[in-house]
Amino acid sequence: MFTSVEIICIGTELLIGKTLNTNAHWLAKRVTSLGLNVRRITNIRDEIDEISQVIQETLQRKPLFTIICGGLGPTFDDKTLEGVAKALGCKIEVNKDALKMIEEKYQRYVKEGLIDKFELTPPRVKMAKLPKGAKPLFNPVGTAPGVIIKHGDTSIIALPGVPSEMMAIFENSVIPILKVAAGDKTFFETSLDVRGVLESDIAPLIDKVMHDNSYIYVKSHPNRTGEKVPHLELHLSTTAENSDTAKNRVSRALIQLSELIKRRGGKIKVLKAKTIS
Amino acid sequence: MFTSVEIICIGTELLIGKTLNTNAHWLAKRVTSLGLNVRRITNIRDEIDEISQVIQETLQRKPLFTIICGGLGPTFDDKTLEGVAKALGCKIEVNKDALKMIEEKYQRYVKEGLIDKFELTPPRVKMAKLPKGAKPLFNPVGTAPGVIIKHGDTSIIALPGVPSEMMAIFENSVIPILKVAAGDKTFFETSLDVRGVLESDIAPLIDKVMHDNSYIYVKSHPNRTGEKVPHLELHLSTTAENSDTAKNRVSRALIQLSELIKRRGGKIKVLKAKTIS
Repeated sequence: MFTSVEIICIGTELLIGKTLNTNAHWLAKRVTSLGLNVRRITNIRDEIDEISQVIQETLQRKPLFTIICGGLGPTFDDKTLEGVAKALGCKIEVNKDALKMIEEKYQRYVKEGLIDKFELTPPRVKMAKLPKGAKPLFNPVGTAPGVIIKHGDTSIIALPGVPSEMMAIFENSVIPILKVAAGDKTFFETSLDVRGVLESDIAPLIDKVMHDNSYIYVKSHPNRTGEKVPHLELHLSTTAENSDTAKNRVSRALIQLSELIKRRGGKIKVLKAKTIS
Repeated sequence: MFTSVEIICIGTELLIGKTLNTNAHWLAKRVTSLGLNVRRITNIRDEIDEISQVIQETLQRKPLFTIICGGLGPTFDDKTLEGVAKALGCKIEVNKDALKMIEEKYQRYVKEGLIDKFELTPPRVKMAKLPKGAKPLFNPVGTAPGVIIKHGDTSIIALPGVPSEMMAIFENSVIPILKVAAGDKTFFETSLDVRGVLESDIAPLIDKVMHDNSYIYVKSHPNRTGEKVPHLELHLSTTAENSDTAKNRVSRALIQLSELIKRRGGKIKVLKAKTIS
């Protein structure tokens, strides 16, 4: 069983279809590439009760990490940390380290001429109010720090919703933590482009390959582009204890699947082979 | 309180970051535009127990609609309907109407030369196996029909994960059902492009506008593009009983917010005004 991660994306813009959730996609890809296992991604509105409820549900499933994205800024609808505090039954209080990070940002904004004078207004101090026991994670791009707080075996990590800020904090502060948890584990994937066989005829071939190759996951993705010939992508992936094992497993399954499809009259092309550790 | 909808997206490709979830974005936008309220979007892997668990959790929150996307095809990992059946405690059985739809598809594929002969193989029959009591929804683009089944006050609607198929079934068969539930309700949104004021200084202005304009939701989205001047989008939206009320509400709030920002030294531009009923 691999280390499990849940992702919670907070933002009404996701629920009304204003914003395409590229953050979840990016996070899921990065987390998977580190050899960890994303079990669930939940998107919810900017509502404290809803945030608190979803975090409590997550904690019951005991993932090693719950990564929350969105809702850390200075406006009324940035409610993530209040939601975390409510879920954990702890207080929100001004964190000295977070306040220092924020002070330094606004002092820099004065120097850069973005604002006239340094002033710690309530919306600015708000970004330093963390759940008791939490630690801030430095934001190299924007103002609001990320946050990490431990509850039982789960580390709750909160990141801003602005993609460049989320990515910067993740790369700087979160990856080192995830790497320790993942050890040498590696995710490896490759894809076969298949033409000339219907998905319903590929189905038993996938069954055979997955039966013969434990740990390999094969998923078919039909391309519906109005072509006259059936066309699909078969995606093979595995997460293994190390890179060699992962590659060997995928290669073996790829060879078997290719042979079976060729015998069935299909045309194949290997699309990509990747590993990121 | 507006009619609530939950969306569940099923597919391991979403959890490993292979596929960007454009389906959830499209569905959320369409559902919202009809005046309904998307409360939660959950992404999970192709696992029967997980699917069943998430559906049961959804049903406990009693949304009027649970829209499920993905996992209706012919391969082993298309497990959505088994998950629905497990959640509802009912059996999976071959549905005559669904089987007829599928037969007609493969008969057409023979005519078009996609396959040599008509044959109802187990993977093809699999797509006609629905939870007892469910009805198929015709798929104008692909093979697997959509599915609708009622449980208590909740209608569970399952759509394929291939975007063109999902959209076609949604437009043809789901919208008429959602429209009856929504009545004349309308969602209306507009955006203000703001330059020259930091988000932390906009925060109290948003508070005032939201206090003075009940039913209006204002959300700030900072643009981090490396510009020297602070730049953000303020999104104003409402869902109202009818289109005139929605527009009037948004216009009133937009005027007040624009005035407040101009007084604060910001430059504004109205980006868009939309209504879809």
